[in-house]
Amino acid sequence: MPKIDLESIEQVNRTGYPPPFDEAVAGRWYRRLAPPSGLTDFGASHVTLKPGAWSSQRHWHDGEDEFLVMIAGEAVLVEDDGRTTLRAGDCAAFPKGTGDGHHLVNESDAECVFVVVGGGVNTGGGYSDIDMLFTPDERYTHKDGTEYGAERR
Amino acid sequence: MPKIDLESIEQVNRTGYPPPFDEAVAGRWYRRLAPPSGLTDFGASHVTLKPGAWSSQRHWHDGEDEFLVMIAGEAVLVEDDGRTTLRAGDCAAFPKGTGDGHHLVNESDAECVFVVVGGGVNTGGGYSDIDMLFTPDERYTHKDGTEYGAERR
Repeated sequence: MPKIDLESIEQVNRTGYPPPFDEAVAGRWYRRLAPPSGLTDFGASHVTLKPGAWSSQRHWHDGEDEFLVMIAGEAVLVEDDGRTTLRAGDCAAFPKGTGDGHHLVNESDAECVFVVVGGGVNTGGGYSDIDMLFTPDERYTHKDGTEYGAERR
Repeated sequence: MPKIDLESIEQVNRTGYPPPFDEAVAGRWYRRLAPPSGLTDFGASHVTLKPGAWSSQRHWHDGEDEFLVMIAGEAVLVEDDGRTTLRAGDCAAFPKGTGDGHHLVNESDAECVFVVVGGGVNTGGGYSDIDMLFTPDERYTHKDGTEYGAERR
């Protein structure tokens, strides 16, 4: 059955972010869609942001393109150039390697829902507003390379 | 600007399907999103189906995963196992190599809109309901290999 039964897929809010960076994403509830549906050429997540929640710390990928489709509600996309409100039907693209961090912030009083697709290979990346990088082997480090002792998941 | 300005991207209904297979997709109007937005790890198209239009002839890919998000309206997903109505917020996954053809048919009296993502490499594929294959070098052939004299685009 190609239609994905979203309710059958566990919805989680887990993060590997070290404290206190995990707090902003506690209200980010997501389902990984690719493993249960047999997709291997790219990843896809179905994400619900509770009011106040962030999609992530503001970040970029060195080796992975991302593409987002808003399904319901609205969120503010924050990037180096400023803020843009995304509403149902809006699409956004984040090519790898720009160094321009992005994230979505739900500043509304209702949930918002989006799907995000990621392709390519993890060659690391970083965070615009905090002292953190992620590595090709899925560790979090300070920008000077010292460890946080935390792994991405 | 990561938000994609859909209106700035040409919307086309072109197809390389040889007649009469082109008729069913005349009301399929789409925008290719990856080239103008800098995505290279996968392709993405924003598609509007007029009432009666098909997303494609019912097809499968041997080497490319597909993933679809309905944004507005509704369409009937047809595959070997039957028919499933997709509505805004529904997602569907079409892993490569299943040989189970799929397409969407707009049987409603309003437009429907979806986004479809494709990854992987074109190693060919085929059509479930007509005597046609597509080749790794983007030609259309009969299932016995003879040419239609038509190229995918």
